[in-house]
Amino acid sequence: MNGSNLIVRLEMDTDRAVFGAIATAIGAAGGDIVAIDVIRPGQKSIRDLTIRSDAGQEAIASAIRSVDGVRIVNISDQTLLIHLGGKLEVTPRIKIRTRDDLSRVYTPGVAKVCMAIHEDPASAFSLTIKRNTVAVVSDGSAVLGLGNIGPAAAMPVMEGKAMLFKELAGVDAFPICLDTQDSDAIVEIVRSLAPGFGGINLEDISSPRCFEIERRLQELLDIPVFHDDQHGTAVVLIASLMNAAKCVGKRMDTLRVVVCGIGAAGMSIVRMLHSAGVPSVVAVDREGILSADREYANPAWQWCAQHTNPEGRTGGLTEAIAGADVFIGVSGPGVLNVDQVKSMAADPIVFAMANPEPEIRPDLIQGIAAVIGTGRSDYPNQINNVLCFPGIFRGALDCRASRITEGMKLAAAKAIAAVVTDEQLSSEYIVPSVFNADVVENVRKAVIEAAYADKVARRQVKRSLGDEDKTSHAEHGI
Amino acid sequence: MNGSNLIVRLEMDTDRAVFGAIATAIGAAGGDIVAIDVIRPGQKSIRDLTIRSDAGQEAIASAIRSVDGVRIVNISDQTLLIHLGGKLEVTPRIKIRTRDDLSRVYTPGVAKVCMAIHEDPASAFSLTIKRNTVAVVSDGSAVLGLGNIGPAAAMPVMEGKAMLFKELAGVDAFPICLDTQDSDAIVEIVRSLAPGFGGINLEDISSPRCFEIERRLQELLDIPVFHDDQHGTAVVLIASLMNAAKCVGKRMDTLRVVVCGIGAAGMSIVRMLHSAGVPSVVAVDREGILSADREYANPAWQWCAQHTNPEGRTGGLTEAIAGADVFIGVSGPGVLNVDQVKSMAADPIVFAMANPEPEIRPDLIQGIAAVIGTGRSDYPNQINNVLCFPGIFRGALDCRASRITEGMKLAAAKAIAAVVTDEQLSSEYIVPSVFNADVVENVRKAVIEAAYADKVARRQVKRSLGDEDKTSHAEHGI
Repeated sequence: MNGSNLIVRLEMDTDRAVFGAIATAIGAAGGDIVAIDVIRPGQKSIRDLTIRSDAGQEAIASAIRSVDGVRIVNISDQTLLIHLGGKLEVTPRIKIRTRDDLSRVYTPGVAKVCMAIHEDPASAFSLTIKRNTVAVVSDGSAVLGLGNIGPAAAMPVMEGKAMLFKELAGVDAFPICLDTQDSDAIVEIVRSLAPGFGGINLEDISSPRCFEIERRLQELLDIPVFHDDQHGTAVVLIASLMNAAKCVGKRMDTLRVVVCGIGAAGMSIVRMLHSAGVPSVVAVDREGILSADREYANPAWQWCAQHTNPEGRTGGLTEAIAGADVFIGVSGPGVLNVDQVKSMAADPIVFAMANPEPEIRPDLIQGIAAVIGTGRSDYPNQINNVLCFPGIFRGALDCRASRITEGMKLAAAKAIAAVVTDEQLSSEYIVPSVFNADVVENVRKAVIEAAYADKVARRQVKRSLGDEDKTSHAEHGI
Repeated sequence: MNGSNLIVRLEMDTDRAVFGAIATAIGAAGGDIVAIDVIRPGQKSIRDLTIRSDAGQEAIASAIRSVDGVRIVNISDQTLLIHLGGKLEVTPRIKIRTRDDLSRVYTPGVAKVCMAIHEDPASAFSLTIKRNTVAVVSDGSAVLGLGNIGPAAAMPVMEGKAMLFKELAGVDAFPICLDTQDSDAIVEIVRSLAPGFGGINLEDISSPRCFEIERRLQELLDIPVFHDDQHGTAVVLIASLMNAAKCVGKRMDTLRVVVCGIGAAGMSIVRMLHSAGVPSVVAVDREGILSADREYANPAWQWCAQHTNPEGRTGGLTEAIAGADVFIGVSGPGVLNVDQVKSMAADPIVFAMANPEPEIRPDLIQGIAAVIGTGRSDYPNQINNVLCFPGIFRGALDCRASRITEGMKLAAAKAIAAVVTDEQLSSEYIVPSVFNADVVENVRKAVIEAAYADKVARRQVKRSLGDEDKTSHAEHGI
């Protein structure tokens, strides 16, 4: 947060400290007081100082602490300040102005709507928020790169995700952070919550628990259940790979790919490479290359071992990557070295998506790798799942899909890739910006088509995004 | 919905039916076609007719059915139409315009906010939606007067409630309808949901399960858990009783009160009468007067029996009500008769709150009862819990109360009563309108004062409603 404002709340003992001394100390530390608010006057005075500084929070704080009779109550910065009170609100879609309005949206009029749903449960999709609302559910067990920080601390991420759902795709999303990490409990809780939601976005749930939780919920519920850390990342990666391959003149059905790090994202990437028709995938994790002749406790790994490594390679990353066209890393920092990249086939494609520190620093393989992608916004080709989840849920909700199929994910990947035209396509630009307005609408259309093809769509859709009241009032059978 | 528009979607076989015949039939039935939308042209044409009619839905429908070759797909009216897509949306409080915005509300910037909460869990109250958000939780087991219609059908009521929270008190409320009616499961689910919420409003959960669910959640959680059907109704009733007593020149501490119907609301009313210092309360249910010399399976009833009927009366409502000052009915239609009202003390006060049909029709006791209140909006003195829940949660959230105490409920009742001035007070006006803007602010202030008195408040509050960012940024210890 370089050069951002700090708000410092301090308590000064006016018998011992004079404000001038504080101002001088802050100035000497490179800070500039732009506002002073006296919160509590008197002998133990409390004041908020808004301080512009490039020196950083610590320099300012220690300068203030150096003044006798002054205590820092706390310090906030812009990022914290914009989070005050949370980032979402729940607002009525209709105003209640008169008693007549009240009697329609609440008792007694609402009773008729309740009974319409009671008689025809499917009408909940048109008569309640279920039509357009997704639950963003986490147990806080694997939040960003921060690990198991728990449900309360996970909320800001889920709130941010809900903001993106609404801003980018008009989807109403609500964050639900669960104070349990028991898989059975999570499955039962989410199943019980489902009546009011049109979809479930699982988020930041640790692997391998996330596989079982998602699978069981998909079996229990008739609405899409989508673990974004697995599939969102995979969809955007596959989209990027399609364009990267095009860039270097290779075909998906001839690629030899190494996937390093078989966690939530890695597993889904392996499955999607499989359904995308990539003939040779080698999966590598800490123990080395997954191979069919070994037994794995985790059923997802078992599947992976059975469906990868056609050449029966053995060893670690070095043995896996020799001659490969593509490296896909969803593992950890510094896992990949330059020699390994040099051992790849001509025009190697490297996706180093570990965050914040990639598997290899892109500048180390400039001129060696033909195309490089990372998870970071400060390098070209950021693989960001914000490109996927808004559009894929927009499409699933609009056609009332009962689930999100492999076909829908693959369609989403192709739709994201297609936003980059052949003229625009280059090794520095294989994936569109998250602010590219075409992405959501492209993904939405493709997902709807695929949902019909896979026979999971349950309603007719108009082709334009947004307002569908005109047709949908026909859906509840009264 | 008299005189409202109907939207009729019909399919006509153009080989057999001509539209003129349909228009004629509708006209003959007293309907007026104000709009026609062709949804699907062709031989099996589908059209939406918007029809203005005072004749009612059935007359129009049968007229249309009488035309050969025409099939009604469905009929919607205004109440259903305003429910299309649900009544709530989840909207960002901050716009995301640039990548810089994105990096603050989502990754990577949000990580700092997550860690701030991880290090100081209390800061979730200021850095997430927890500060201002209430879960409106129901299992659909006792919805309005409709009974056990289940979670999906309960949603429109919970959505309506959430609208009122926001419109009347600026509280963000989100409806959660649970697909389980197992009390243990509900307790565990709501406990698990709590990290993201500042309060829990339980709604339309059947008695006696509601007592145990509420009590156990209050013991498990450090945020207010409030079953509105019990306490909301009780608070507004006590407010009304205070003004009704004033009206007839009686004092609360001399009243003799009969409470008829010891369910969710009845039980809470008995407790509040007790804490409001009413000396003589007789509780009556189907089995007659509850008395201390009997054993009751339901612990709530056991408590009630121990704390009521000081004169040790026996028998039914007739024996209970003789000489009483006040009748409070939360039971069923027609339970009370005129002779019973005549047997009461001078200037009897009658609250007949069964919905939609009260215990006795007010017009039957005009001139006999001095003050009459009901749950209906088409009589004077409507006892409506919309007067309570927005303000009581506004106050509880603003002072970060850990629970809602008897003292806070009593303070809320007095605050509601006080909105009606001595000049305004009359037997026809003992309780303010739900649209009276003073109600929420009065209740909020009183509830906050009481929360401090009862030592359940956890934060300093400014005195004005709404924006508190200015002070609250000081609450997270970074």
